[in-house]
Amino acid sequence: MKARVTVTLKTGILDPQGKAIEGALKSLGVDGVASVRQGKVFDIELAGGDKTKAEAVLKEAADKLLANTVIENYRVEIV
Amino acid sequence: MKARVTVTLKTGILDPQGKAIEGALKSLGVDGVASVRQGKVFDIELAGGDKTKAEAVLKEAADKLLANTVIENYRVEIV
Repeated sequence: MKARVTVTLKTGILDPQGKAIEGALKSLGVDGVASVRQGKVFDIELAGGDKTKAEAVLKEAADKLLANTVIENYRVEIV
Repeated sequence: MKARVTVTLKTGILDPQGKAIEGALKSLGVDGVASVRQGKVFDIELAGGDKTKAEAVLKEAADKLLANTVIENYRVEIV
């Protein structure tokens, strides 16, 4: 079973990397971009076909390792 | 207008970071994960409300800066 975990910064948390990308896009002449925030995405292949169990495993993985839940939100999707 | 650009490694490109995450999940006792591949996500706020123009701007941004199209695929979504 395939799944995707998307990790994004919480609202209000500064994102210097996103700010740098904004600046770089401006320098490259890409107009119309108001703001950029960068996050991470994990494409995960799971053994077994139980969806409920898969969601529990992904939540555990996100809480323990993939996301820093103090400053980041995550979203789990079974693809 | 809000948009999301998701950048993922092409199939066949080695992902040592993903491999490291797999190993770390195993060490942490998270079972049932067969493989992990890491990508990037960019949440972009665009000025103006023209969807066609927005898609063109995002494609340009991805080609010029956000993705290395030699080894990465990207997907543009208007949210």
